[in-house]
Amino acid sequence: MAELAGGVIPPLCTPLTPDREVDVPSLEKLTGHLLEAGVHGLFVTGSTGEAGYLPDAARYRVLEVVAGVAADSVPVLAGVIDTATPRVVEHARAALRHGASALVATAPFYVPTHPVEILTHFRQIRAAVDLPLLAYDIPVSVHTKLDPETVVELAADGTLRGLKDSSGDLDGLRTVLETLPDRDFLVFSGSETMADTSLQLGAHGLVPGLGNADPRGYVRLYDAAAAGQWQQAATEQARLRRLFRVIGVGARPMSRYSSAIGAFKEALVQLGVIEHGTTSVPMVALDGAERVEVRRHLVEAGLLQA
Amino acid sequence: MAELAGGVIPPLCTPLTPDREVDVPSLEKLTGHLLEAGVHGLFVTGSTGEAGYLPDAARYRVLEVVAGVAADSVPVLAGVIDTATPRVVEHARAALRHGASALVATAPFYVPTHPVEILTHFRQIRAAVDLPLLAYDIPVSVHTKLDPETVVELAADGTLRGLKDSSGDLDGLRTVLETLPDRDFLVFSGSETMADTSLQLGAHGLVPGLGNADPRGYVRLYDAAAAGQWQQAATEQARLRRLFRVIGVGARPMSRYSSAIGAFKEALVQLGVIEHGTTSVPMVALDGAERVEVRRHLVEAGLLQA
Amino acid sequence: MAELAGGVIPPLCTPLTPDREVDVPSLEKLTGHLLEAGVHGLFVTGSTGEAGYLPDAARYRVLEVVAGVAADSVPVLAGVIDTATPRVVEHARAALRHGASALVATAPFYVPTHPVEILTHFRQIRAAVDLPLLAYDIPVSVHTKLDPETVVELAADGTLRGLKDSSGDLDGLRTVLETLPDRDFLVFSGSETMADTSLQLGAHGLVPGLGNADPRGYVRLYDAAAAGQWQQAATEQARLRRLFRVIGVGARPMSRYSSAIGAFKEALVQLGVIEHGTTSVPMVALDGAERVEVRRHLVEAGLLQA
Amino acid sequence: MAELAGGVIPPLCTPLTPDREVDVPSLEKLTGHLLEAGVHGLFVTGSTGEAGYLPDAARYRVLEVVAGVAADSVPVLAGVIDTATPRVVEHARAALRHGASALVATAPFYVPTHPVEILTHFRQIRAAVDLPLLAYDIPVSVHTKLDPETVVELAADGTLRGLKDSSGDLDGLRTVLETLPDRDFLVFSGSETMADTSLQLGAHGLVPGLGNADPRGYVRLYDAAAAGQWQQAATEQARLRRLFRVIGVGARPMSRYSSAIGAFKEALVQLGVIEHGTTSVPMVALDGAERVEVRRHLVEAGLLQA
Repeated sequence: MAELAGGVIPPLCTPLTPDREVDVPSLEKLTGHLLEAGVHGLFVTGSTGEAGYLPDAARYRVLEVVAGVAADSVPVLAGVIDTATPRVVEHARAALRHGASALVATAPFYVPTHPVEILTHFRQIRAAVDLPLLAYDIPVSVHTKLDPETVVELAADGTLRGLKDSSGDLDGLRTVLETLPDRDFLVFSGSETMADTSLQLGAHGLVPGLGNADPRGYVRLYDAAAAGQWQQAATEQARLRRLFRVIGVGARPMSRYSSAIGAFKEALVQLGVIEHGTTSVPMVALDGAERVEVRRHLVEAGLLQA
Repeated sequence: MAELAGGVIPPLCTPLTPDREVDVPSLEKLTGHLLEAGVHGLFVTGSTGEAGYLPDAARYRVLEVVAGVAADSVPVLAGVIDTATPRVVEHARAALRHGASALVATAPFYVPTHPVEILTHFRQIRAAVDLPLLAYDIPVSVHTKLDPETVVELAADGTLRGLKDSSGDLDGLRTVLETLPDRDFLVFSGSETMADTSLQLGAHGLVPGLGNADPRGYVRLYDAAAAGQWQQAATEQARLRRLFRVIGVGARPMSRYSSAIGAFKEALVQLGVIEHGTTSVPMVALDGAERVEVRRHLVEAGLLQA
Repeated sequence: MAELAGGVIPPLCTPLTPDREVDVPSLEKLTGHLLEAGVHGLFVTGSTGEAGYLPDAARYRVLEVVAGVAADSVPVLAGVIDTATPRVVEHARAALRHGASALVATAPFYVPTHPVEILTHFRQIRAAVDLPLLAYDIPVSVHTKLDPETVVELAADGTLRGLKDSSGDLDGLRTVLETLPDRDFLVFSGSETMADTSLQLGAHGLVPGLGNADPRGYVRLYDAAAAGQWQQAATEQARLRRLFRVIGVGARPMSRYSSAIGAFKEALVQLGVIEHGTTSVPMVALDGAERVEVRRHLVEAGLLQA
Repeated sequence: MAELAGGVIPPLCTPLTPDREVDVPSLEKLTGHLLEAGVHGLFVTGSTGEAGYLPDAARYRVLEVVAGVAADSVPVLAGVIDTATPRVVEHARAALRHGASALVATAPFYVPTHPVEILTHFRQIRAAVDLPLLAYDIPVSVHTKLDPETVVELAADGTLRGLKDSSGDLDGLRTVLETLPDRDFLVFSGSETMADTSLQLGAHGLVPGLGNADPRGYVRLYDAAAAGQWQQAATEQARLRRLFRVIGVGARPMSRYSSAIGAFKEALVQLGVIEHGTTSVPMVALDGAERVEVRRHLVEAGLLQA
């Protein structure tokens, strides 16, 4: 099986048909689009993939399709997002059946949870399903932060194979990295905008939602960083930072998810990768003016001709 | 079908076997215990019922068992707790199949959501499944508060049949009640400790987790309130407030859920209603000293002989 | 000296001249307006009094003027609002010199503070200045909640003479009241909208900002409650709840303080009590349309002729 | 007057006598200790300087003493920490009189404030006192974050001369820096632990509390960064990150301020710079074991012989 290592592992958008079924041909094209760009792995049913909205059958279908296209050329990580351990374990078992190479799980949410229970949570998931397990630190959704001590303890006892850090806390990321310098533990940054900085601090890889639209940009950034060409990485990052402003196109009342995921999907439509920009209920769809704004960003970033 | 109205509608604990399957005989006994006490409805797979932990099959089994015992003598409300609309709709459809008389749904969580999207969320659930729908306001879990304007708008257009308020915001509850004085809209308080006050402000019913252990207490409180005997209601409430301190028995590192749900279940064991005090992973189980404390509270409240 | 007891103790607005000096004649008229309405005390330099904005000299001038008009007919409570103990003690000493009958202090803010340090804080203030001390629980400003255990401990050792509860947590207020049933400890509710409920739960008094505009309303509510006429109290409360919506008149971008304090002051201008509606920098002033809205609320509440 | 520019500008601790007066000889020695280490400026009455605790007279005395010792060799920045504009303006005027070269002010706190009011706040301070003004972004204390748009707008119109960023949000810091690449605007990081990263992102200077104890370390780090020796800067940073763990010495119930400021002061005592480790009321003093821990950290960092 493709070995999990560092590199660029985009969190795939989930293309939907207008009646909100998984758009399998578009998903296959998106997977190919990423693989051709040279990404090092694929992450499905994460937050960018609308996992919080997708019914179970849709989640598993997405994994199956992407794993099929990837055909073990790169690892396929599956988000197993749910409120607490027994529900997450069910997703983990299903992910194993549907072709996942590794699992990505958050701490429990909705249910109030003590730090000692967070330890139990990850250990039970790991014990239940024999796949590498990454902790997904995303306080904006989970409303708790995984503290570095917890991550280090779970790394030291072999529960966790890595961390996907979407917390924005680079200081904490550095603490994890410096506490476990010699271990076989992988730290991924979920930041689109601080990717170069994260790599310079020692992170092993990137999981940028914007990587759906511009996977080559992140691969260039990663390659520059791997070669120690930090100035070149920063230049690429600066361009990607400008492009990332596309997530703010939604100017009417809507959640930031509606705006960001709508923008990523619309970009993929305009780039000819997927068919429809449809997002899940109850997200607000981008309107015509907002879609024009997406185009403007793509042109400015050099991804489309004016 | 048993008509949803006011009254005492306890949120049932979900008895588990030591290997954490639904303990059906205990659940049947618990249902009978509540019906004999004169409760006016039954609420399954809410927060007290460990819905955040239970796999789907367990959730639906619980509903089926309780609906079977209730046999339409009282309405059975089903919590349909999940992160966003499509996932909640799936639970809602399953709940309809398994015997629910009404649905109880929160706003989306995990996914960031705008107020206009919350409106869409509830409307889509209502449109998808033809059962009375109650909004479940529980900011401690959902991390947003349903504001009174949202509730009133969804009541006015017929989306919501009622509100289960576990927010602790009695001022907001009063605003809802005074804004919709003549409508057929039901407000339930999820508070164990301000039940009398909620009823005096006009709430129609109670959904107290402590009502698992002492349903007769809450029925007496409700009956006193219905008769305008507020002093008697307050006296009953004072006794129940003391008993509610049982949720603090867990003195070691554990979440407040571990302590509270552990205490409710242990009380049911000691009262001879259910077989095991087992709670879901990753909750911490009460130890011997903590279980003795539960007993002390039951004796003080007059529910057990010393 | 006028003895601190229960009753209606409005938190006085601080009238300002157009160049934002204390408007002494208006402040004297406001004090008289409240005393004539039969209030049981006066609270100066609280949040409603813009204490967070007023320089020290203005704070002390306000106290001096109000204490002068009150002439010991009722107690004058002084807010001593500052970030931590040594700064609060300075205000407390000044308040003693300028005529305060009692002090009202929050927990420390701005500086992170542990519960054991909150105990020390109140004890040191009490030790430094020989005036009755009330704790001011206002989490919206202080960003910590005074828990009932802390209040009870400080009541039991004689540090606190009372509590001004602006937290909205009626359950906690009830816990304080039932834990100290026989003590000489005074609980005031800072709620404009749950005053009757607070009194029914056993609170001794009210500190409603809206009492600047309608002190007679709150005195009637209090008198009805004291006579056990709860239905009459609720009717008065319902009228005051409608009037309180006046705090939402500020429809343009502005803080809720700008809207609420602007509305209270504008009401006092329209009622002929004070000269100017001026508020402190950087608050946004109400515009003409918003001032018309204030008038509409006053007419609806029966305080002005149409 | 010494021109404000980049570099290392430590936020001075405020040495106190055992009866909690400003310890002037110790403060003079501390100032000398920092100047000899080659710092580029001095920041008094910030959070590290216990400004939230110090009465006005003590704040101004501190400024006067430090400005006297500095004798215009480096700029002396004065924190003007208070709840809202009129109170901050008073501090700003006093700071001008007592020798400040520049002012550092937060957004309003305690009082709820809208973004448009934050703009007014800084503009009024700037208009009132003719000294360079820096915004102090410290959400842990102020409970709002200064967003990059606000900072950029206030930079563009000449209100702000710079930003002291203690928010930990390196992404936002980068946004400010890239939005104003050519302007004469200074960005200082308040982070002890991400100083090298901040400088690499383009920050102009550092305001590290730990710089009281180890100013030479931060000067070395800054000099390495200025010379583009990023690996050397990172090595120095790694040592300082280990030393910074000293802020966790307080193992008993106490605030993190008690532990951190207690540790900084105890380090200065052990290094022979100041006389007493005394901190303000209501902070908890370090005990003997905790002071031994401080020593252990100093030895490990190479600042003391074992």
